Amino acid sequence: MYQFRHGPAREAEISDTELPELETDALPPETQLDEDDRLKPEYVTAVLDALEAGDDEGARALVEPLHPADIADLFELVGDEERVNLARAVADLLNGDVFAEMNDYVREQLIQALEPHEVADIASELDTDDAVAIIEDMDEDEQRAVLRALDPDDRAAIEEALSFPEESAGRLMQRELIAVPEHWTVAETIEFLRGDEELTTDFWEIFVVDPGHRPIGTCQLSWILRAPGGIAIGDVMKREQTLIPVDMDQEEVALRFQKYALISAAVVDASGRLVGMITVDDIVHIIQQEAGEDVLRLSGAGEGDINEPILDSYKSRVRWLLANLITAMVASSVIAAFEGTIARMVALATLMPIVAGVGGNAGTQTLAVTVRALATNQLTQSNTARAIMREIRVAMMNGVTVAAVIGVGVSLVFGNPALGLVIAAAMMTNILVAGLAGVLVPVTLDRFDADPAVASSVFVTMTTDSIGFLAFLGLATAAGLTG
Amino acid sequence: MYQFRHGPAREAEISDTELPELETDALPPETQLDEDDRLKPEYVTAVLDALEAGDDEGARALVEPLHPADIADLFELVGDEERVNLARAVADLLNGDVFAEMNDYVREQLIQALEPHEVADIASELDTDDAVAIIEDMDEDEQRAVLRALDPDDRAAIEEALSFPEESAGRLMQRELIAVPEHWTVAETIEFLRGDEELTTDFWEIFVVDPGHRPIGTCQLSWILRAPGGIAIGDVMKREQTLIPVDMDQEEVALRFQKYALISAAVVDASGRLVGMITVDDIVHIIQQEAGEDVLRLSGAGEGDINEPILDSYKSRVRWLLANLITAMVASSVIAAFEGTIARMVALATLMPIVAGVGGNAGTQTLAVTVRALATNQLTQSNTARAIMREIRVAMMNGVTVAAVIGVGVSLVFGNPALGLVIAAAMMTNILVAGLAGVLVPVTLDRFDADPAVASSVFVTMTTDSIGFLAFLGLATAAGLTG
Repeated sequence: MYQFRHGPAREAEISDTELPELETDALPPETQLDEDDRLKPEYVTAVLDALEAGDDEGARALVEPLHPADIADLFELVGDEERVNLARAVADLLNGDVFAEMNDYVREQLIQALEPHEVADIASELDTDDAVAIIEDMDEDEQRAVLRALDPDDRAAIEEALSFPEESAGRLMQRELIAVPEHWTVAETIEFLRGDEELTTDFWEIFVVDPGHRPIGTCQLSWILRAPGGIAIGDVMKREQTLIPVDMDQEEVALRFQKYALISAAVVDASGRLVGMITVDDIVHIIQQEAGEDVLRLSGAGEGDINEPILDSYKSRVRWLLANLITAMVASSVIAAFEGTIARMVALATLMPIVAGVGGNAGTQTLAVTVRALATNQLTQSNTARAIMREIRVAMMNGVTVAAVIGVGVSLVFGNPALGLVIAAAMMTNILVAGLAGVLVPVTLDRFDADPAVASSVFVTMTTDSIGFLAFLGLATAAGLTG
Repeated sequence: MYQFRHGPAREAEISDTELPELETDALPPETQLDEDDRLKPEYVTAVLDALEAGDDEGARALVEPLHPADIADLFELVGDEERVNLARAVADLLNGDVFAEMNDYVREQLIQALEPHEVADIASELDTDDAVAIIEDMDEDEQRAVLRALDPDDRAAIEEALSFPEESAGRLMQRELIAVPEHWTVAETIEFLRGDEELTTDFWEIFVVDPGHRPIGTCQLSWILRAPGGIAIGDVMKREQTLIPVDMDQEEVALRFQKYALISAAVVDASGRLVGMITVDDIVHIIQQEAGEDVLRLSGAGEGDINEPILDSYKSRVRWLLANLITAMVASSVIAAFEGTIARMVALATLMPIVAGVGGNAGTQTLAVTVRALATNQLTQSNTARAIMREIRVAMMNGVTVAAVIGVGVSLVFGNPALGLVIAAAMMTNILVAGLAGVLVPVTLDRFDADPAVASSVFVTMTTDSIGFLAFLGLATAAGLTG
């Protein structure tokens, strides 16, 4: 497989026989990107105007100087129909690097418009991991057609990758790596690296393996370059290494890269043999994605991608809204139980959403903190009790403050100290319950291996709504308040 | 400054004169970590039991085999008082690597318990960026005392770093890097790297600079190792490079690393001179942190760290709850305007929170999607109009579905088709408004350079609450409903 990283475009492949001249335009020019590295709207409009005017050549000229990551961004920024026209105009710029950087949904749409042999051409330019990313989402028929069009080596590598579960290390890893035996000297290793033309040219560390091809250490290239030539590689390498099982979930892989600040890591099969390598540049977007997912899951927005097909967005969101409809009905039934009280004092209906709403917000705060702490492995069984105590203390301080404000306010506005006392007590109760629910619900879900971000907020909102209405209307009834 | 990366602990520094034997216990043993790389509760308890029994030696023996990142985790998992006892027992294991991996709040607490010369000892073990991270949060007096205790070179480097704004590239970068002139051959470069004992041993790329020390290209070590010796380094390097201005905000730096899949990047001052290097291992936790912040900001949980001092958590959260109290009162005043209608039909009070609540959820969904799209630069001026249209279409589909369910349900349960029609119409209206507010509010805040994650949800919730009550009670009044 052709060695090509999807980092910043590199004009030349290095080989012993030819070294092309490098003539480039360095950084993406200031005319295309704003200070946040986003494509300027004027620039995007210029490209679209050229397309609309039928000036495909002009559009291509505008797009050509862009970095592959920016070409990918451009495709994400334009509309569905414009996207197809753009692809036609800049077809020759649409290489593997561009596809590797592209949003999943946008890539899928474009790939569907291509012939199998075109997809195969693109895939053969890429490392296994990026090729797999392009092929894995295709229909089975098309997938087979693309695989048939690939050369046998690439095909075997991709088929093997596809045999691993989705979002596993086996899909993420590339097979191109350097492995050397422990007894080689530094000089021999350098000789080997400089001599063999077949080797990959992009790697950051080499792996040291035993005769059974099991990794026993890792060696940064800088250590090899800085060590004396006569020393065995086994004495330069670092023996502590973080091995990635081939079936490990990508979220775990990302956490491991982050925790141990890895640049690359060996992937091993069940028998401990080295089968691949994962590099950090393939991990950063997973770290970003996994960390950003919490807010989408907590709000029930599914994948939450603005390029997701509308029907998919509808399906994932409406499911959540219907679930919330049910919990809202539970809260509503609590109110129904107190209709007599409300009929005697309609002001209660005016005030009750305040108790439920602020309680809901307090619950969401605790929930967000707890979900993040669980996701980053900061909250474990060892400190759960302390985290709960912590949230109770914060909730008590919040409760006292908010209850005092609303209590005094209602007493004065309604000229009714009893009503003020009732709403203050209900508010205090609800904020405390919110704090407890906000930490207990996600911790419990996590203990049962459920994703705390997905289901927590339904339970917490139901709790704060119901308790809010129950405490306020219940206390008002008990106090015999009448309007 | 002593060259030491805070990656996985490396037992040996490589030098030409001595190469210590490596005797290590490889991976963190399975007895300490669970399958998610978290310290097992049994293990943490064992350490705490030893401490409580006064067996400092036993505790130290348990902690010694841990990876620095896991020692840092251990300190985060134990309580405040246990933390100080633990620090006393394992004082000699508390090196710079451990501090570099530690949560900010926990580190601050421990650093405060140390003498300035002890802090200086730790800082001198670290690369500039990690040393700065430890020193930057100290009081000015203590900071001065630590700086006085450092040797002049380290002190100058750290003082220079501290002269840059917090969270800027200047604070993140390390000064230890390799820069060579363009005309050197590959062989000369390798010779230089292998010859000079003073050089750093940890780097992934070298920078090629012009006579004015301005970077003109970057070269992966693997390319140097794979290229023929006689070629000039200027013909091997990649000329497109992503330069980081020294005053760039760390969030921008993180986005740039992610977008262009960088392993390291040159940092330049205002005149374009190379002043430092940032490596991806220092960036991954920023990527993770920035991506995870949205959920905390949207919920008003401030920093949202479970190790944050309770008083700080209280202050940031109560401010938000009081803001929400005000918006809840606005919604409450809408209800108050319809007290007459509620008095005629108390069932309206029972049902109105459903309209407001489900609308609020629909708004939060759109908000979460929009905030993430803005944070990842997927939503820009170029596609705002399309994103708004997209959300309106999703909202219409959601609205029709939820309105139909609640409309039919209420008609049947209350035996009142007019009431069913009113709640369906109100629900449809509110979900549409929620979708619009969920995208317009954050996009508008972003256009005015305000953080859309911080303030959006107050506005959106106020809108969905008020419109929910207004639409439902208003339509009920117009329809002349009575119980």
